[in-house]
Amino acid sequence: MATTIFPHATGAALATAEAHKDPQDLIFYSGWFCPYNQRVWVTLEEKGIPYQYQEVNPYKKEQRFLDVNPKGLVPTVEVDGKALYESLVLCEFLEDAYPDRKPSMFPGDAYTKGHVRLWVDFVQKSFVPTYVRLLQAKEQDKQEPARKEMIEALRTFTAEIKGPYFLGEEFSLVDVAIAPWIQRDDVMIEHRGYTREAVSAEWKRYADHVVQRESVVKTKSDKEKYDPLYARFL
Amino acid sequence: MATTIFPHATGAALATAEAHKDPQDLIFYSGWFCPYNQRVWVTLEEKGIPYQYQEVNPYKKEQRFLDVNPKGLVPTVEVDGKALYESLVLCEFLEDAYPDRKPSMFPGDAYTKGHVRLWVDFVQKSFVPTYVRLLQAKEQDKQEPARKEMIEALRTFTAEIKGPYFLGEEFSLVDVAIAPWIQRDDVMIEHRGYTREAVSAEWKRYADHVVQRESVVKTKSDKEKYDPLYARFL
Repeated sequence: MATTIFPHATGAALATAEAHKDPQDLIFYSGWFCPYNQRVWVTLEEKGIPYQYQEVNPYKKEQRFLDVNPKGLVPTVEVDGKALYESLVLCEFLEDAYPDRKPSMFPGDAYTKGHVRLWVDFVQKSFVPTYVRLLQAKEQDKQEPARKEMIEALRTFTAEIKGPYFLGEEFSLVDVAIAPWIQRDDVMIEHRGYTREAVSAEWKRYADHVVQRESVVKTKSDKEKYDPLYARFL
Repeated sequence: MATTIFPHATGAALATAEAHKDPQDLIFYSGWFCPYNQRVWVTLEEKGIPYQYQEVNPYKKEQRFLDVNPKGLVPTVEVDGKALYESLVLCEFLEDAYPDRKPSMFPGDAYTKGHVRLWVDFVQKSFVPTYVRLLQAKEQDKQEPARKEMIEALRTFTAEIKGPYFLGEEFSLVDVAIAPWIQRDDVMIEHRGYTREAVSAEWKRYADHVVQRESVVKTKSDKEKYDPLYARFL
């Protein structure tokens, strides 16, 4: 891989990592740069769960980490020497393992919980792949259909937004699931002809609001450290 | 689509559908032939949840169904006039909405629940696509790599089986998630050179056991009604 990933979180995310360097029962193995990772980090911060932040250097993974998760994937959460991984599995786990830590990322009844999972699934399967395709579209003639496709997915999503958050007043796992990609849309704005307004005024209002959520701000590194990650696509 | 789908469940599945034709608060819109659908049906049967079975003719969807779910997808579950869909979202919903109906498809603690979700995710993202690719491989030279890939995925899965079910003595959502594809492996055996033994003796033991589960047997239609569904691939 030609890309060089900066070895640790910076800016607000570094301060958050530093505040969580002491040993805890729950260890969060993280890659500061990874949007999937940020979902878990946001959930930990939202719920105020005690955790130890452990940056994983993707070029040099520590043996202790590989012993816990031989796959070497981040995000990984270790509890009692056992590992779980996959961002959405981890977000669900944090709800199940800390039911008394509020707020719940599933506010509401069983139907609402299902509705949240349905739209988390949409983010994962129908939106994220369009983001990846637009990012990877180097040629101008490939960018336009890719951009249209991403904007179309975001419009479908926006039609379900109650505002200011997806469900209304309460922040939920749907917002957690999409926030890292909203935070990373500057590369699309600078290099792929995308704007939040191009989706709709309502999407822009939602997107602007979600990235100002404290848990999102606190898990964000400095912009210039993200830029090299996209260099190979630009 | 050249395939003609038989209009309703047959055999054991028909008897189960007939036993659930009376109106209930929960309506299960189903396609008898669909493996995703069977996941939801198995979960309903396992938990003994009162439900009304409603077969959806894929060629002629009723207006009442389309009013509830304009996407027209099965499986769909309607509760209080509101619809949810996506098989795994529905299985999770049935757990959340009927917490007192036992057995739970998530036996065990929060970690175990995460472990179950991780392997359900494996079934969905790493196994099912290999099944589809092998089914679609008409040419002999494409069948061998596709078969190897599917067997490899099943071996990875098998390494985690405690036996007789995935988690051990208790049936869980992992078994629910994979059972419909095990039930449908006869087409692979007859036309794609697959055998359960080719994966391993342990896989064969597990697969043989899972398809004998009462809830799986009760949601199975007659074999000859499934065969035409595969005709276009053979």
